[in-house]
Amino acid sequence: MNHNGLNIPHSEQPRIVVIGGGFGGIHLIKHLSKYNVQIILFDKYNYHTFQPLLYQVATAGLEPDSIAEPLRRIFKHAHNFYFRMAKVDRIDPEKNKIATTQGDLYYDYLVIANGSTTNYFGNNELHINSFPLKHITHALDLRSQLLQNFEKAVLENNKAKRAAFQDMVIVGGGPTGVEVAGALAELKKHVLPQDYPELDTQNMGIYLIEGAPQLLGGMSSKASRKSLKYLQDLGVQVVLNKFVKHYDGEKVILDDETTLFSNLLIWAAGVKGDIIKGLSQSAVQHDRIVVDTYNCVQGYKNVFAIGDVALMASKKYPKGHPMLAPVAIQQGKLLAKNLIRIITKKKTKPFKYLYKGAMATVGRNKAVVDLPGRIRFGGFLAWLIWMFVHLFSLIGFRNKLVIFMSWIWEYITYDRGTRLIIRPYLRLKYKKIKKNTV
Amino acid sequence: MNHNGLNIPHSEQPRIVVIGGGFGGIHLIKHLSKYNVQIILFDKYNYHTFQPLLYQVATAGLEPDSIAEPLRRIFKHAHNFYFRMAKVDRIDPEKNKIATTQGDLYYDYLVIANGSTTNYFGNNELHINSFPLKHITHALDLRSQLLQNFEKAVLENNKAKRAAFQDMVIVGGGPTGVEVAGALAELKKHVLPQDYPELDTQNMGIYLIEGAPQLLGGMSSKASRKSLKYLQDLGVQVVLNKFVKHYDGEKVILDDETTLFSNLLIWAAGVKGDIIKGLSQSAVQHDRIVVDTYNCVQGYKNVFAIGDVALMASKKYPKGHPMLAPVAIQQGKLLAKNLIRIITKKKTKPFKYLYKGAMATVGRNKAVVDLPGRIRFGGFLAWLIWMFVHLFSLIGFRNKLVIFMSWIWEYITYDRGTRLIIRPYLRLKYKKIKKNTV
Repeated sequence: MNHNGLNIPHSEQPRIVVIGGGFGGIHLIKHLSKYNVQIILFDKYNYHTFQPLLYQVATAGLEPDSIAEPLRRIFKHAHNFYFRMAKVDRIDPEKNKIATTQGDLYYDYLVIANGSTTNYFGNNELHINSFPLKHITHALDLRSQLLQNFEKAVLENNKAKRAAFQDMVIVGGGPTGVEVAGALAELKKHVLPQDYPELDTQNMGIYLIEGAPQLLGGMSSKASRKSLKYLQDLGVQVVLNKFVKHYDGEKVILDDETTLFSNLLIWAAGVKGDIIKGLSQSAVQHDRIVVDTYNCVQGYKNVFAIGDVALMASKKYPKGHPMLAPVAIQQGKLLAKNLIRIITKKKTKPFKYLYKGAMATVGRNKAVVDLPGRIRFGGFLAWLIWMFVHLFSLIGFRNKLVIFMSWIWEYITYDRGTRLIIRPYLRLKYKKIKKNTV
Repeated sequence: MNHNGLNIPHSEQPRIVVIGGGFGGIHLIKHLSKYNVQIILFDKYNYHTFQPLLYQVATAGLEPDSIAEPLRRIFKHAHNFYFRMAKVDRIDPEKNKIATTQGDLYYDYLVIANGSTTNYFGNNELHINSFPLKHITHALDLRSQLLQNFEKAVLENNKAKRAAFQDMVIVGGGPTGVEVAGALAELKKHVLPQDYPELDTQNMGIYLIEGAPQLLGGMSSKASRKSLKYLQDLGVQVVLNKFVKHYDGEKVILDDETTLFSNLLIWAAGVKGDIIKGLSQSAVQHDRIVVDTYNCVQGYKNVFAIGDVALMASKKYPKGHPMLAPVAIQQGKLLAKNLIRIITKKKTKPFKYLYKGAMATVGRNKAVVDLPGRIRFGGFLAWLIWMFVHLFSLIGFRNKLVIFMSWIWEYITYDRGTRLIIRPYLRLKYKKIKKNTV
């Protein structure tokens, strides 16, 4: 068997190849690694990202290292585990083989867990000019751009142009959009006036644009109403029932021809499954991979998909489960057990999503929580619960400690820990790369 | 007066323009800001870097944010202070004017405090292929390259090529070179074997090349001997009395034709003053700016230079003071007072360097300290002193706290806090930029 440079040792153990070290992938591997199987994980990055806190890195609250955990460190005690930093280009399910940027590899079982990517709904202009927020590199880019715009505003004589460097537009009223908007509003209130006394920071505009009639569409109407009120109290201008049609890097045009001027547009309006080529046409629908209730990909016996990329229709979720971390985690855990059941020729168990609630935070003492049994509340208690659930879910004790300390610091001082512009040339390069890939 | 977009308000206060937010610049401004003067600081970065700890960022010990402090935050209470993120391209001392990337500005007094830059002694091949360590961006590049090389080593079948991805060469036996070599040796001992069980990390080579017959040339011979022993105990191969002649990115050739193979060469062999064009020829010698004992630049009345870039010859230091933080700090403080004396027409005082000692750390419990009065020692006590002096000198209480906690964590767990590859594309870009600027 030719491994083409991937250097995976030959083993008698069944080989399980996992694509993606997100929530689904790492929970799958955690539960698989104690069994007699060989596990190979592929990821483009050498670390797992705790995506729910990306927005705090982007808004100068947390350091990037504290929301990430090196994949090798997570599984350092697993002796049947191999990590390869590579992008998987193609799956060849007929030959039980994948092609990666570093070479090909045969598998006995394949688990596709590479999550989702930003969805621009085919609008290349938006793809090129807006800032997504899916990876740590995005968060650092966004933070640098935000601060660079303020440095440029200081130098700008023209009033309208200066305002465009300060004003920010966030598109998408889901948890990410709401959380970014809230964090920016607090930055405007507590940090920017001290750093930029020369600027009229109190008049800077923070716009949150949402196509639906309410925010946080996936949550209760109470959560939608409360989050809207919280944001408006913080000075965010929430625009509902509107879509962004054009954005050239400066001028934002909405579908009703309303025009805004901003040098920073954050695109949090949607994600889609990150599809790798090679599966049959019928296995891919709506940019997701169709799986049965055992997360087995339609038409294959030894290919599985979990998390955001998997489309498992059920009675309760006819269009598939929501693209959320808890779904990925639960599918990862169950699939680990089911794979061992398959290998040991036992009966597998179907997936049933256990809804544990949903939450979003807007700012200091301001959050909304929906719990099972129609328990809905907001305010300080919701904010405390949001914090503890996130701390508890973080990978790595050091990360929990560092983030807990950062939050206490921020709460007491109203300051943010970090506001360095460390990728000043990247935006340009990034644009070029995106132009080439669009 | 046309400010060409720099937007500095007109003021009756004497205008003092400072180039560079390093140790000299910030201590100067701290002592100036309470007086009735207008202060304008220019820097390419929006933060002050605590350079003595850069090597810990490069070797995955500290997060970049904790060794940096935003310049605007340092002086947020100074109402006569203006920061402009720009590069100063040219000084026009005849017209009392500087030209920056963002526009021109007139000054009443100019303080050049832009420090030093890496010295490749005219060797462009080394400039392009080696990694310097002067800025946070360098440290992040170095960390990413180091870890990427290990990911590549895992994929490499050829034994010699695999070794070249693991072996590292550090050039320069000053404090930076010694500290980097020590930190890499500890990374090799405690972290890499866990992260890369597939690799023969125990046989990876860490080479420290120094042209002089001893390490830490600026310190006592006891410090030189002790640091050499500490490094050798940690497995570093120290090569003295040799120079690097060629490095093409893979093959290192020394002046005696010894050849080493390594994909990572860290250049810590020298710095030179970072000279801005425009001063008279006689004012620049040996890549530094000639100043009198009042830090006034030769041939000018209202242009001053402090820190690394200033060449102040004295009896004790006929070739100028060592390029160290304490010199810059002391010159900054004195010049602040002298500028006020000049403005208020009082008598200025000459500079006298107060030597407070020198130190370097090699690793856990291993450091060397020279104190005034020929007090020289090493070991645990030296290491404790090194830590507390560095903690004490850091700018910002939060940074002190975060670094103190990181060190305790590292000491207890033998682990490093952070090892993310977050600039995977940068090396290429960086090379291109350097090629254009060489």
